Amino acid sequence: MRLLVANSNTSDFVTGRVAEGAREAARPGTEIVAVTGRFGARVIATRTELAVAEHATVELLAEHATGCDAVIIAVSYDCGLWAAREMLDVPVVGITEAALVTASLLGTRIGMVVFGDRVLPIYREVVERHGYDSRVAAWRGIVSNAPYSPGDTSAADALAVSAAVELAEREGCEAIVLTGAVMAGVAARLQPRVPVPIVDGVTCAVRVAQMLVDARPAKPRTGSLAPLPVRAQHGVGAALAARFGGGQPA
Amino acid sequence: MRLLVANSNTSDFVTGRVAEGAREAARPGTEIVAVTGRFGARVIATRTELAVAEHATVELLAEHATGCDAVIIAVSYDCGLWAAREMLDVPVVGITEAALVTASLLGTRIGMVVFGDRVLPIYREVVERHGYDSRVAAWRGIVSNAPYSPGDTSAADALAVSAAVELAEREGCEAIVLTGAVMAGVAARLQPRVPVPIVDGVTCAVRVAQMLVDARPAKPRTGSLAPLPVRAQHGVGAALAARFGGGQPA
Amino acid sequence: MRLLVANSNTSDFVTGRVAEGAREAARPGTEIVAVTGRFGARVIATRTELAVAEHATVELLAEHATGCDAVIIAVSYDCGLWAAREMLDVPVVGITEAALVTASLLGTRIGMVVFGDRVLPIYREVVERHGYDSRVAAWRGIVSNAPYSPGDTSAADALAVSAAVELAEREGCEAIVLTGAVMAGVAARLQPRVPVPIVDGVTCAVRVAQMLVDARPAKPRTGSLAPLPVRAQHGVGAALAARFGGGQPA
Amino acid sequence: MRLLVANSNTSDFVTGRVAEGAREAARPGTEIVAVTGRFGARVIATRTELAVAEHATVELLAEHATGCDAVIIAVSYDCGLWAAREMLDVPVVGITEAALVTASLLGTRIGMVVFGDRVLPIYREVVERHGYDSRVAAWRGIVSNAPYSPGDTSAADALAVSAAVELAEREGCEAIVLTGAVMAGVAARLQPRVPVPIVDGVTCAVRVAQMLVDARPAKPRTGSLAPLPVRAQHGVGAALAARFGGGQPA
Amino acid sequence: MRLLVANSNTSDFVTGRVAEGAREAARPGTEIVAVTGRFGARVIATRTELAVAEHATVELLAEHATGCDAVIIAVSYDCGLWAAREMLDVPVVGITEAALVTASLLGTRIGMVVFGDRVLPIYREVVERHGYDSRVAAWRGIVSNAPYSPGDTSAADALAVSAAVELAEREGCEAIVLTGAVMAGVAARLQPRVPVPIVDGVTCAVRVAQMLVDARPAKPRTGSLAPLPVRAQHGVGAALAARFGGGQPA
Amino acid sequence: MRLLVANSNTSDFVTGRVAEGAREAARPGTEIVAVTGRFGARVIATRTELAVAEHATVELLAEHATGCDAVIIAVSYDCGLWAAREMLDVPVVGITEAALVTASLLGTRIGMVVFGDRVLPIYREVVERHGYDSRVAAWRGIVSNAPYSPGDTSAADALAVSAAVELAEREGCEAIVLTGAVMAGVAARLQPRVPVPIVDGVTCAVRVAQMLVDARPAKPRTGSLAPLPVRAQHGVGAALAARFGGGQPA
Repeated sequence: MRLLVANSNTSDFVTGRVAEGAREAARPGTEIVAVTGRFGARVIATRTELAVAEHATVELLAEHATGCDAVIIAVSYDCGLWAAREMLDVPVVGITEAALVTASLLGTRIGMVVFGDRVLPIYREVVERHGYDSRVAAWRGIVSNAPYSPGDTSAADALAVSAAVELAEREGCEAIVLTGAVMAGVAARLQPRVPVPIVDGVTCAVRVAQMLVDARPAKPRTGSLAPLPVRAQHGVGAALAARFGGGQPA
Repeated sequence: MRLLVANSNTSDFVTGRVAEGAREAARPGTEIVAVTGRFGARVIATRTELAVAEHATVELLAEHATGCDAVIIAVSYDCGLWAAREMLDVPVVGITEAALVTASLLGTRIGMVVFGDRVLPIYREVVERHGYDSRVAAWRGIVSNAPYSPGDTSAADALAVSAAVELAEREGCEAIVLTGAVMAGVAARLQPRVPVPIVDGVTCAVRVAQMLVDARPAKPRTGSLAPLPVRAQHGVGAALAARFGGGQPA
Repeated sequence: MRLLVANSNTSDFVTGRVAEGAREAARPGTEIVAVTGRFGARVIATRTELAVAEHATVELLAEHATGCDAVIIAVSYDCGLWAAREMLDVPVVGITEAALVTASLLGTRIGMVVFGDRVLPIYREVVERHGYDSRVAAWRGIVSNAPYSPGDTSAADALAVSAAVELAEREGCEAIVLTGAVMAGVAARLQPRVPVPIVDGVTCAVRVAQMLVDARPAKPRTGSLAPLPVRAQHGVGAALAARFGGGQPA
Repeated sequence: MRLLVANSNTSDFVTGRVAEGAREAARPGTEIVAVTGRFGARVIATRTELAVAEHATVELLAEHATGCDAVIIAVSYDCGLWAAREMLDVPVVGITEAALVTASLLGTRIGMVVFGDRVLPIYREVVERHGYDSRVAAWRGIVSNAPYSPGDTSAADALAVSAAVELAEREGCEAIVLTGAVMAGVAARLQPRVPVPIVDGVTCAVRVAQMLVDARPAKPRTGSLAPLPVRAQHGVGAALAARFGGGQPA
Repeated sequence: MRLLVANSNTSDFVTGRVAEGAREAARPGTEIVAVTGRFGARVIATRTELAVAEHATVELLAEHATGCDAVIIAVSYDCGLWAAREMLDVPVVGITEAALVTASLLGTRIGMVVFGDRVLPIYREVVERHGYDSRVAAWRGIVSNAPYSPGDTSAADALAVSAAVELAEREGCEAIVLTGAVMAGVAARLQPRVPVPIVDGVTCAVRVAQMLVDARPAKPRTGSLAPLPVRAQHGVGAALAARFGGGQPA
Repeated sequence: MRLLVANSNTSDFVTGRVAEGAREAARPGTEIVAVTGRFGARVIATRTELAVAEHATVELLAEHATGCDAVIIAVSYDCGLWAAREMLDVPVVGITEAALVTASLLGTRIGMVVFGDRVLPIYREVVERHGYDSRVAAWRGIVSNAPYSPGDTSAADALAVSAAVELAEREGCEAIVLTGAVMAGVAARLQPRVPVPIVDGVTCAVRVAQMLVDARPAKPRTGSLAPLPVRAQHGVGAALAARFGGGQPA
């Protein structure tokens, strides 16, 4: 099985971490194809960068999805998710969506740990868009840049553990989502210090994607996810234009 | 991998259909252990029977879960689901929950096809309890007993297809859930005649359960899903009493 | 008027407290028939025990409801409530439901006082199932076993008062529900120390039940609460099997 | 027991119907004091008339509530309800609120039958304000003036029955509320032709009010329902001014 | 353009403050007609006073709206708002509604600053009625009477600033509404000390009203806002009776 | 006053229609600067094209917003709206947001008329994201391409009128939103045939934008809308990169 893991951030370091986490989570024999965004922010942390990443994501997938059995959007805002489900014939999974789905199968009230105060409202919107606002009971924002570069992450780990423990003990959360593509594989490291299940997006997304590949779901033939119509697109990448059945307009 | 598929209905015919559907859905090498409820209704179709099945489910799991890697509750009301998650150390999945989770990854608005008018309100409550009422957009109830005994199901199939097509075309649903344990594996048969993805519970639950086994989630140590305390239980089965760390009270 | 007060817990002490509270609350001339669960936990405090109690409740009512004018389910999780409304021809009331209904007629935002942290999420689900989540504004969990055995309860009283006062003064709650069957009649004792109305379930349920008896509501002839169909039931109590119009299957 | 039934409509005919319905519903020995609004519309059917009735209601209650054990606001918009709960020391019940509460104890999904298309949105707002929008599943508006004057109501009855049957059979409603003060006592007449419980506001409100009188609830000492402060009021009735501890300002 | 600014409070001081704030906010050449309620409380601070003000508002508008291009209800409970929209042919705006609308265009999560603890629940109901409860994320109540009489308001200002800063920094609010008619124009004074946009009702309402005047919206011909039918009204002001096409009944 | 009207569609025809509608709606002396998207679809009608337009919008605004007093995003999916509010110091308005805001000030329940069945679910998501799902009561999708090219639109007009009349008369909607940038100014033409207020996005957005310019709202200094941090952006337009305080990375 071949999984495309698309990091629409332009940071190769993050793509590396994501690829590593994905490989750990995948079943034996899975090929992980990890790609990095061609344009935009190194690490998306503003709404403007996220708007760019919506586009960067569909370009990235248009280019690389061919030949893959499923696609993971490895940006924790799940940007471009439903567009990708429209554009492609194979299953597509967002990492925060996958973490929410998994957490919902493990605990009743879900707690969210987010890196950065500025992006907290954006994550709330992601959760609402997925329809999980009735399940998500509490939030904690923590501030640390350590995960985004090589080196010691024990201080960041401690912050995340402390947030997760608070969510469990003070807020009654029974499952924790650790957001952020760069946290790929980290939940397992923190689990022994957290009294309820804690999951991270990339790890969950790999498993959800593999489950969907097994399910071989039908491509919708009607509605907002039906195959793209043939239409000219101006000034987009050739691969993306080709998805609309044509080159770019003359 | 060994999966317990627990049908708390007391109908061996339904268990047979469920087991067959589960085996088709499971990865190669999976052992499906299918068990039938010891007491209660042949096919749960009233609230009173469902109340009995809540108990029957935990008895059934107490008896048979040992040695299994995950448990599927193969009753489409997902009875005993959170109790089972408390009682056991391994992942537990409800079949309607699994179908909702899967449908939510494939389409935006979900349509529900239910066998029987009388049970329709009960299914609405199941969906609300899972927090999926904002995702489920429309319902169709159909009336046929054909699936519950051997023989030709083409008329029942036609009813289900017609309901699903209506949900897609008139109600704008982009994924369909076909409820009922006995519909195990049927969604795939109907798919060619339905323009959006259609899924059934047992098939989805097997895949979700296998995904969770791969994830090896931690058992909660606090909250409403923490291990059962040691407590005496009166007049319950020995296996269930043992789950509370003791025999029955003198 | 004859009221069945069914405590599906197997603790006679709790039944005693419930019966006493019910007699204080009932109009003169009311006969209170208090019965104790035949099987299950002494005091339900886990999800697994609650699953057993769903069944125990319908068995208990099947056996004892005949000849009663209404039924009170004296377990604060309101287990088996809608099943009982289906099975029986007389009004059925849950004690937490009754407390919520009463509180909603006395104040805008409702505060909940719950004994035990572990069960707090279960109570949240009870409130959601009744559709009262938009009215319930805040929760306090307190920890004390004192109410469950004879003896001094002044320390537990102080905890409950302190929780109720906080709900009123910090959270703006204008009516308080004191949950727990064993708290029957206790709200009146605490009221002088609480600045907004405080009610307990058993007391409210007796009054709601008597109101419904006066109303002589029609039994539904259609829907999920219509009379039980004639159907065989395996391995359930004779009285419950009889409610389905038959004995147990051969 | 003495119940004030306050019809803030200025129609004596409606007051007569309400009083008659209230007397039928009350326990023996209850004194029904029925009063009619001093100013405003004969039968409130616009938002502007309802705004006037908010005031008319508190004037009416300020004048007549003294010496009564509870108050029923016999206008189906439940106008002035929470104001009355603030102003008075005795229980206050709105007729639509009482019908919703009663219906919620009898069926899962509630259906609403409303006289008049123009007022339908206003009733929706009443239901939302009571927090019952998650319980109310469907609406039917019917048009007939027959109930508002003496004479044959069989045509109006037939319309109401037909609406209620539709709500039960097509919309899956399991309890029906027949709105309108003038429908006092009518639900019982229609019940034999409706397959699920149907209730009317005045009948329910009398029973709910008597239940609350029995409960002797405490008057809130804090919050938005605490006793009125001493404050001058300009140009209001003497009884209302007196409720604020004073006459009118010089 | 001529704007009626109707303060249904009977305090001329508040009307003066409102008129001043309205003039500052209006475009050049706008005539502000500020009127004070004829009856009721000086400053509405209880539910009973608010019920009176519902009526006072429609009387006030019936008398003064003729010849005005739009109407502002300058009471922060937005009393009589939809009644006024029914009664009149010109746009009507509530001051809290206008503040919510404006805040929603400037920030995601809205924080509310309210003067007085007793009225806090009433404001919550206003917000819910406008359908803004999903946008309003947090509340702060502050206690000060200073704004309601001439003199130094620096202490009240400091309280409001502190509440607003907390809403922004601790609760993640991105726009703040400062409620209260008397706070007309105050938001601009506090803005430099608050890190997110803060708005007050009167200032916003003037701008919203002018926008609606420019839009020349059609008067509804059907529904609950259609023109008033011809109907007799008992005991109301002559201007209000005239709005129903007649004098008072003989 | 200078308003930027940004059509992220790449169709100059649509930009022309939008500009014309904007000029009609603007106050005298307003300069309308209408610009067309540099890349993407001619008329966005799929999720994939919308993802591209998120990016195209912020590029377009980065290039053209300087010197404008406010910005209107003239794409009815309101793409890039909150990003633009973050990136810019001046007010930004989405056309569907503006229509919803305006409709909410004119009627209680809002009806939506949408061109195209495929995009209907996307519009539902736009409405939910704005928090207006509790106000929007019903939807009608109509199919016509006529508005997107010059020529007779009387057939499309008739479809829209018929949809709007149905929304008012069958669904009880009291205000109608006509979606689509290309419908700029059309609502006024249809109004005489529709019994409740009908509004279109561009017209509303111009008025809302002018209102916000008058209000001179503060730029948030904290939260998700605070000024963009200085950060390198890869492969984006020079104007957009400059908004992040720098050129493109070496």
